[in-house]
Amino acid sequence: MSFPKKLFAEGFGTFWLTFGGCGAAILAASVPDGAGIGLTGVSLAFGLTVLTMAYAVGPVSGAHLNPAVTIGMATAGRFSWSQVFPYIAAQVVGAIGAAWLLSVIATGSPDFDPAHSTFAANGFAEHSPRGYSLLACFVCETVMTFFFVAIVLGATSKREGARTAPLAIGLALTLIHLVSIPVTNTSVNPARSTGPALLMQGWAIDQLWMFWAAPILGAVIAGLLMPWLLRGHADAGAIV
Amino acid sequence: MSFPKKLFAEGFGTFWLTFGGCGAAILAASVPDGAGIGLTGVSLAFGLTVLTMAYAVGPVSGAHLNPAVTIGMATAGRFSWSQVFPYIAAQVVGAIGAAWLLSVIATGSPDFDPAHSTFAANGFAEHSPRGYSLLACFVCETVMTFFFVAIVLGATSKREGARTAPLAIGLALTLIHLVSIPVTNTSVNPARSTGPALLMQGWAIDQLWMFWAAPILGAVIAGLLMPWLLRGHADAGAIV
Amino acid sequence: MSFPKKLFAEGFGTFWLTFGGCGAAILAASVPDGAGIGLTGVSLAFGLTVLTMAYAVGPVSGAHLNPAVTIGMATAGRFSWSQVFPYIAAQVVGAIGAAWLLSVIATGSPDFDPAHSTFAANGFAEHSPRGYSLLACFVCETVMTFFFVAIVLGATSKREGARTAPLAIGLALTLIHLVSIPVTNTSVNPARSTGPALLMQGWAIDQLWMFWAAPILGAVIAGLLMPWLLRGHADAGAIV
Amino acid sequence: MSFPKKLFAEGFGTFWLTFGGCGAAILAASVPDGAGIGLTGVSLAFGLTVLTMAYAVGPVSGAHLNPAVTIGMATAGRFSWSQVFPYIAAQVVGAIGAAWLLSVIATGSPDFDPAHSTFAANGFAEHSPRGYSLLACFVCETVMTFFFVAIVLGATSKREGARTAPLAIGLALTLIHLVSIPVTNTSVNPARSTGPALLMQGWAIDQLWMFWAAPILGAVIAGLLMPWLLRGHADAGAIV
Repeated sequence: MSFPKKLFAEGFGTFWLTFGGCGAAILAASVPDGAGIGLTGVSLAFGLTVLTMAYAVGPVSGAHLNPAVTIGMATAGRFSWSQVFPYIAAQVVGAIGAAWLLSVIATGSPDFDPAHSTFAANGFAEHSPRGYSLLACFVCETVMTFFFVAIVLGATSKREGARTAPLAIGLALTLIHLVSIPVTNTSVNPARSTGPALLMQGWAIDQLWMFWAAPILGAVIAGLLMPWLLRGHADAGAIV
Repeated sequence: MSFPKKLFAEGFGTFWLTFGGCGAAILAASVPDGAGIGLTGVSLAFGLTVLTMAYAVGPVSGAHLNPAVTIGMATAGRFSWSQVFPYIAAQVVGAIGAAWLLSVIATGSPDFDPAHSTFAANGFAEHSPRGYSLLACFVCETVMTFFFVAIVLGATSKREGARTAPLAIGLALTLIHLVSIPVTNTSVNPARSTGPALLMQGWAIDQLWMFWAAPILGAVIAGLLMPWLLRGHADAGAIV
Repeated sequence: MSFPKKLFAEGFGTFWLTFGGCGAAILAASVPDGAGIGLTGVSLAFGLTVLTMAYAVGPVSGAHLNPAVTIGMATAGRFSWSQVFPYIAAQVVGAIGAAWLLSVIATGSPDFDPAHSTFAANGFAEHSPRGYSLLACFVCETVMTFFFVAIVLGATSKREGARTAPLAIGLALTLIHLVSIPVTNTSVNPARSTGPALLMQGWAIDQLWMFWAAPILGAVIAGLLMPWLLRGHADAGAIV
Repeated sequence: MSFPKKLFAEGFGTFWLTFGGCGAAILAASVPDGAGIGLTGVSLAFGLTVLTMAYAVGPVSGAHLNPAVTIGMATAGRFSWSQVFPYIAAQVVGAIGAAWLLSVIATGSPDFDPAHSTFAANGFAEHSPRGYSLLACFVCETVMTFFFVAIVLGATSKREGARTAPLAIGLALTLIHLVSIPVTNTSVNPARSTGPALLMQGWAIDQLWMFWAAPILGAVIAGLLMPWLLRGHADAGAIV
């Protein structure tokens, strides 16, 4: 598979992650008559973007769709460091494109008030959905990304898991959103954070550093730990 | 498998898609005491109609259940153009039958007021659930169908995916509904749009063109793009 | 596998179907502070009872858990008619046991008012949750059971589907509940209807005939149709 | 796989079960504006913690993540009694760590009122969410754990189930929560109960005995019954 095609697949897939996940939050989470999909629906949407792309383009690029996953895979020795930067660039471009297209659709509704929308941007402290402190938000994003990348590394560690891994990984992202939307609006993915932040400007840009730092920290720890934990299993050709 | 049997399976499956998906919207989405299944439940229902039919009759006809999927598969060179029209006709007949049967059931309730029901028809502008403009609706339906058909083509491109493809495709449809019900009531499927429109008459017929044009446009783009993206990966002889 | 063991597995599994599905409806659907699981949660619960039992005891008895499924399988020539009555008896015994145990738990709460509970019984006309007529209820139950049994027959028609069939079948039951709880409280399973009806007495017993007649009618039609539809596929060793 | 690594995996996995499941309950179940994930979201979260860990570390330790599962597996002759105590100790340590970290995050919000939070502890009688009696709670926890362990034993009894077992087991836990959160806040897992109880102190410690006794009773019964039920089917050498 040629490298440009892999980069296209990463941009394509991260576009879908951001368009579907943030789109559910912006367009459908809370509609005026109280019948929106709520946080459960948004959590499901984020997970299903990854599940569907992992089945659709997983064989092309690995369907990382997330700089933290790419860095975690490289830390674990399962992805070449020389490809990390291009992968991340493609992911960020996809996420920005999705955020822009979402804004085109969102502004097509008479109900949409750009002055009061957060465009699904991530935030901490006064911009945390429920006012969680920077410390609480940093810990939450780090722990959540650590487990997300650990699940990615564990679920993909053997060939047999190939076709069920998308299910485990997608539903892990749903789970993470079920817990942490009230804390940070849930990132665990620096590309997903960057798209809406560029639309929002202001505080979302000022706080963007945290949604790169914490996920990457969590991913690196997972990338260091999991090869030790999985060793023996993955070498020995064990079943299951 | 004989061709008439394939057509029967497409009509049968599209009946179920329309009966289950639109049925959830009409009968269960909002019941008077506020305990309805809401948009999340309707999204789940649409996805599960496709998931269940893909497992049940996928091996008979491919379980397209959607003119956009049939056209996307043909564009990608994975389905014969000579069979496209009969497939679409069978799908539309199934959807019309389902809409009719739903109306028989719905009118059996004293709560049902045909003057205020939209019969789950799709609409834009003043008939968009939240008033989205024609442009926003057209873009949304095109992008959503593009990704839906891309996921169908990607998830079915290799033999390994055979038994998990229905899962990816069904849940992709759930995801699409989670995002876009407030925009157009979500079509991405011209047959599903046609059934309720024939019951509604009036504006739903006037606007029906859009729910053929945008999905087909998205499907053709996906059919042109995905074979290039998947080549190398899928060259071993696509099945399904 | 010995025949008594199969009967035990059917009783065991139908106990779980009724205990989990009706239990979700009775104990958790609507709690006073408005935070219950609602119809979506109940729909999920019913589907997951079948999904989990199909994985747990499917290899023992086939995990029919439903007289309509047993009759549909026999009609399709995939189950011996001589075993139909014992299977149904075991299913009914399991469902009655579950309904009784649920009543023990439910009456342990000071909030529980037996005079106003329906014990998740099925009903039509004045006992339909939203007042649907007998005709609408009969049509709905027949069509839903027809598709349920068709999905069971389709998803289990080939050995390859063995491990994904529980997923398709369980989620089909979730879908059916998402649509039809407001109509009949959803049966599609005469055993599941019989357990709560015996607890409720009165109208639930008077209306029980319909929740045997309609599901069995739907199942027989599916059992006659599907072998024709699937033939050729199931014989030729086709893939997917 | 070395034994210390197995213990690490059990502690790691039970941390995630408690952090994700109780975290969803504490941080997201009910947010002030009425848009929380509710009991359906919490039920989904608990199930997905097990589903994701079973895919990620199942091959390392078996992913019991629950003293009742460990005891049930040992009773069924599928796990060595000599390893039971270390497994349980690792699970409890993981759950306590998760409860502590959750309290660090929860107290980072100005909305969080430790005097009125139950930290997702389990309780009966006056500490049952809806006031269910000790008897009702004991019966409910015993029956639910019995079926949970029966599903674990059934779904993992054959090699074919290897990759779908995590799905069945995770979704079984979701189902159990859908039914029984109003009764006991749902335990079926003594380790998960112990973490929050140590944070809560007082009544939660006083009532903790029940959330060890009932789940273990249910697990032992399942461990005695299922090998008989599955024999013949599973005799080819159980794996997992």
